[in-house]
Order: sequence, then structure tokens, then C-alpha cells
Amino acid sequence: MLSPDRPISSKEIPSAAADVLARIRAQAPRVHCITNAVAQNFSANMLLAAGAIPSMTISVEEVGEFAGRADALLVNLGTFDAERRTAAELAIAAVRQAGKPWLLDPVFVERSPQRAAFARTLLTRQPAVVRLNRAEFAALSGGDVDGAALARFAQETHTVIGLTGEADIVLGDDRLACISNGDPLMAKVTAMGCAGSALVGACLAVEKDAFLATAAGLLILGVAGQIAAARAGGPGTFAAGILDAVHALDRATIVDRARVV
Amino acid sequence: MLSPDRPISSKEIPSAAADVLARIRAQAPRVHCITNAVAQNFSANMLLAAGAIPSMTISVEEVGEFAGRADALLVNLGTFDAERRTAAELAIAAVRQAGKPWLLDPVFVERSPQRAAFARTLLTRQPAVVRLNRAEFAALSGGDVDGAALARFAQETHTVIGLTGEADIVLGDDRLACISNGDPLMAKVTAMGCAGSALVGACLAVEKDAFLATAAGLLILGVAGQIAAARAGGPGTFAAGILDAVHALDRATIVDRARVV
Amino acid sequence: MLSPDRPISSKEIPSAAADVLARIRAQAPRVHCITNAVAQNFSANMLLAAGAIPSMTISVEEVGEFAGRADALLVNLGTFDAERRTAAELAIAAVRQAGKPWLLDPVFVERSPQRAAFARTLLTRQPAVVRLNRAEFAALSGGDVDGAALARFAQETHTVIGLTGEADIVLGDDRLACISNGDPLMAKVTAMGCAGSALVGACLAVEKDAFLATAAGLLILGVAGQIAAARAGGPGTFAAGILDAVHALDRATIVDRARVV
Repeated sequence: MLSPDRPISSKEIPSAAADVLARIRAQAPRVHCITNAVAQNFSANMLLAAGAIPSMTISVEEVGEFAGRADALLVNLGTFDAERRTAAELAIAAVRQAGKPWLLDPVFVERSPQRAAFARTLLTRQPAVVRLNRAEFAALSGGDVDGAALARFAQETHTVIGLTGEADIVLGDDRLACISNGDPLMAKVTAMGCAGSALVGACLAVEKDAFLATAAGLLILGVAGQIAAARAGGPGTFAAGILDAVHALDRATIVDRARVV
Repeated sequence: MLSPDRPISSKEIPSAAADVLARIRAQAPRVHCITNAVAQNFSANMLLAAGAIPSMTISVEEVGEFAGRADALLVNLGTFDAERRTAAELAIAAVRQAGKPWLLDPVFVERSPQRAAFARTLLTRQPAVVRLNRAEFAALSGGDVDGAALARFAQETHTVIGLTGEADIVLGDDRLACISNGDPLMAKVTAMGCAGSALVGACLAVEKDAFLATAAGLLILGVAGQIAAARAGGPGTFAAGILDAVHALDRATIVDRARVV
Repeated sequence: MLSPDRPISSKEIPSAAADVLARIRAQAPRVHCITNAVAQNFSANMLLAAGAIPSMTISVEEVGEFAGRADALLVNLGTFDAERRTAAELAIAAVRQAGKPWLLDPVFVERSPQRAAFARTLLTRQPAVVRLNRAEFAALSGGDVDGAALARFAQETHTVIGLTGEADIVLGDDRLACISNGDPLMAKVTAMGCAGSALVGACLAVEKDAFLATAAGLLILGVAGQIAAARAGGPGTFAAGILDAVHALDRATIVDRARVV
């Protein structure tokens, strides 16, 4: 693990990401996911493929117990019902109490003012990471999607931003990385972004440096996506193949294929 | 597109279906789906494979917003809870206000009188299409499943009927088509009918002629099913393969393989 | 079918399991599943692959109707919300009234005292089978996981226990079988245990001997898992492949590959 005194450089990310994946496999951290109904199954399978353990309950009676003992928490707003909102509040309180990290995936905030308002409230509860796309960022930041806006947002919210798209940008803690792995088929599978957030959650569970954890999660997914795309007959076999690829991923493949600047 | 003055003949359906698919890919319409929990993931992936964009929220606070700005709406009764019933009412009101089409998939109405009663209420809100199987039709029409009953039902409800089964029958607006593509493996994958309804929703979003949209959606699914069945090792790989096949489908394949009378 | 006077021996299980599978395919029993959101789709596909018919509603207005007319009921506690708890109570009452069997899958009871308490209440409603893993058994039995504890639990609750893990143990009615089929990849697919419970439900629907039904369901899943693992590229293709393998499974393969003592 890198020293906190010497922040990681982009060149070091691939090898450090391989270390993070090795730790997930060795420690099998549990990631509690409050996520949308469409994404639950695929996100759970993504976590299992990486070596982590998913839990997914949203029942208000037990979510605090589940989240408080988990190694990391993902809150995804893709299903925005009253039960999940309450569950999110309880779970976030429990992980903060336990000193564990959590990340926010503000799905579709650009399509619903209520969702955006709830996401803004949650941002005050110190998520370690926010993973989102350009439209979602624009809705939350209320303006442009450029380097200055990203930097300002990261500073104001004290979080690492994982902005995914054709290239993924990781920004926070005065560091910046751009990952250009991945494949267009990733946009043709529902909940791929949500599963990516779950994977970042697994990385956060074993890596205190949230910037590195975010870069590692997105890099692992992107490299696996390229491997799966090369074998897939289309989006259906691709969805299965990316789980296979995450499961089989080794250090040499991550380092060889990584495109990180 | 065909002139409304000259209704499409069965011979013209394959080529017109290829046009509809091309328009889905070009326009990427958003189809809002209020659908059952079992079907959400597969339906979203079916829409993405065809080139459309799914949204799936059922939260009463935002479903009106989501549906009102969508290009078409699917209401599937497969999960019959109070939240989804309220969401369906709100979403249907929103799309009618916006002048957009919606379709009804009255899953399992033959097994529950409450569901059948709710479906009958929704039929008064002018769905463009009702997609269902023989048992569901019998439950709604209260009697035989024959040509006369279908014609009477279509006339009384002012909708196009997509009756799926070993062969698919599309009936409405004084026109009739019978599509005998598809494969028995389609009955071995859960939510295949629901995903077919989602695909018809994508066709409705880009084609005002509801009869053609329904025939196009069912033909595309049937042809893709035949292609996937030829490659599949069973229902598991078939489910992935039909998404691949929808994604790869081209005009020549649709026209060559179509069995429409 | 074996005579109730002459209980089945372990040697006879493989051939008897093949009989049970043949009956599922011939009779297409409907298995109503109150199961968690993560497991619904995969469990439904598992039932279809085996030749059974799934239904999944949890709506309190209709779950009694659905369950009362089903051939067997599965109650899985993986999503522990108020609606599912009420649905479980209603559905269990309906199947008991109809004289049909039901089985309990007490998912994650070791992580939540409320869940364990609810599971204990349900155990008083005479499930034919409880399918669970070691941690879940320890939480319910309140102590060790050994032969004596299993035997005591089975006797006290009058149920057959299907304890799954590296090897599966079936115990009840003074009989014991140990099945060592299966593959480590089964632990890398979410809801595999839940889908196994659904499969046991399908067996219960066509086989009155709950011990044999449980052994048959777990053996079918284990043999299918081995076949799928030999072909899979990882957990993603394995999840599809095990459905293919269940669908294609024949008597000779079950008998040849079975490892039952």
C-alpha cells in the first residue's frame, strides 16, 4: 500500500489496482448495497465475481444492523421510493458510526428534481466517493461539466468524483486520473454503471485512499469490459462475459491493458 | 412510412418492421416501464439491445415526470402492489396529457379477479396496444378466444391486440396479421413476454400506426428468438443470445426470415 | 414412486431423482415463490428450466389466491420487508388449507435477530423442508452444527433439513444422505441457494416424500453445476450454463454423476 504522504501517480494506478483486487479476493469484504431493483442481481454478481460479498436488504428494521457491520456501503438512487430513502438514511448513519466508507450513485438525478434534492442532502453526509455520469453531474453541480466545476464540486463536498463516460475521470484530493479503458457495449447493458459503483464499493472496503479505490474499481471494470467485448456476440453475452472477465482478471492483464493518464 | 390512407398489408410488414427498428436505433426513444420485479432487468436489457432507453421508476413522487417526458409507456401488471397501481394511474395520465402512446400487458389476469378488474379499468384509458396471451385474453373478454371475440374486443376497446403464443396474432383497426416466427425456448425464459411488450413499446415510440408497431415488435422478437435458438445450449444461454440477436438484427435477416400472413 | 413403508436408501436416490425430474417435466407444477428481489429472476428461470411454472406475486390482495392454487410454496426471507412478511403468512395459511407442501429458506438469519425470530415463528407452521447453510442453521438452532444438532432440529420441527455447503446434507424422517456434487462456482453466483430452494419446491410439488424431494432437488442442481462448470468461462457464463444444464439433464447423466452416500 502506498504511504498517505506520497499520493499515488497515474503511472502507479494499474499496479496499485491489481493490489486492491488481490486484497478484495483475500479479505472478501462485505459491501452493503441499497440499490435499485433493476441493478440488484447484476451488482451482486459483480461483487461476487470480484471476490466480495454482497448484501442488499432495504428493510428499515434491519438495514442499520446490516450496514453497520459491512465493510463499505453503496447508496444508489435508481429506485427512489420512501422505503429506500429511509433505508439510506439509516444505513449511512450506521456506517459513519462504524467508521466505514460509503459511496453515492445519484442515478437519473437529472430527470427528477426530488431525486436531485435528496442527493444534495446525502452529499452533506460525507460520502467518500460519488460515482456518476455527465448528465447527473450537471444536475447536481447546476452548471457546466468541466475541470473547474469538477474540482470545485470535489472540494466543496470533500469527496472523490468518479465521472464515467467514454473515458472515466477520477478527481479528488488534488489528484486527477483519466482512464480510457472500457467498451461501447458497456452502455448497452442495464445497471452497468450501478455494478461499477458496487465494484468501487468493494475497493473502498479494502483501500483507505478513496481516490485510488475509485480509480481501481473503474479500471478493473474497464479492462474486464474490453476483454469481454472481444469475445461477446452482443450485449447479452457481454453481460455474462464481463463477470467472467472480472473473476479471471490478473495483475499482468490489468497492467498491460490499462490506459491511465 | 406508409400513408395512413393506405393501411399496411401483411406482405409489407417485414420491410416496415426493419424501418421501425432503424428508427429506434436512430432516435433512441425512452420507454418508461412500470413492470414487475422479475421482468425489470431483462426488459431494460431488451430495450437497450434494440437501441431504446429504459426507465423504470415506480415512485409516485416522480413517475409522472418520468412518464410524461418519455416517448412511450408500458404498464405491466405482473407485480400487483398498491404502489405500482398508483404509479400506473399517474403515469398513464401523464402520457395521455403529453399525447404519447402507452400499452398494457395484463400479466396473469386469469389468476386473480382483482388484477382482471384493474386491467378492465385501465382499458378505459385508451391504451394503443394490449399485449397478452390466450389465457389472459379469455379472462379479460370473459369467453372464447376466437377471431370474432378478438375483433369485438379490439373494436370495443379501440386498441390493437397483440395475442402471443405459438403464433402471434396482431389485430386491430380492421387489419389482421399472423406471425409464426419464434421458438419454444422463448417460453422457457421468464419475462420473455414482458420484454416483448417493452419492445413493442419502443416500436410505438417511433411509429404512430399501432398495428404496425405491434407487428414490428413481435416480428423482431420472433426472428431474434429463432436466431438465438439455433445457437443456444438451453434457456440460460438463449436468454443472453436473444439480446445479442436483437442487437445485431439487420433488414435482410428480418425480411428473409419473416413468416407473416 | 417408492412405497412409504420402505424408505429410500441413498443408493436409490439418483434414479429416484431422475423420476422426480421426469414428473416435473410431465406435470409442469406451479411453484409460488415469495422470494427476495435479487433472486426472483434467476429462481423463475431455474423453475422454467426444470419444467415447472413460477409465480412470484407478493401482493397481499392476491397472494392467498396464487399460493392456494399452486402445487408448492417457497418462502425465502432474503428480502425482509413488512409486505413480504404479511404475504408469507397469508400464503402459508393458504397452502396448508389446500394440503400442499411449503418450504422455508431462512436467508441471512444469522445477520439479523428480527429475521431469525420470524423464521422461528414460521417453523411452527410445519414447513415440509428447511433449506439453509451452516451459518443460518447455527443462528436458528442456537448452537453447534453437527449431526446431533441437525437430528434434534429435524425432530423438533418435524421438517426435512437440506443443509447446503461444500457437501449437501439431507436429514429428516430418520434418514440421512450426503450429496457431494456441485462446484465452487455455485458460490460465485448470487441467489444460487435461493434457486436451489425453488428447485426443491418443484420436487416437493410432485413428490410427497419430502426427504426424497429435497435430495432430488439438491442432486439435480449439483450435477447441473458440475456440467456447467466444465463449460463456463467464469461465474457469468456459469449462471446461464447451469440453466442450460438443468434443462438438458437426463436420467443417465444424473445416475452416472451422482455422488450420494
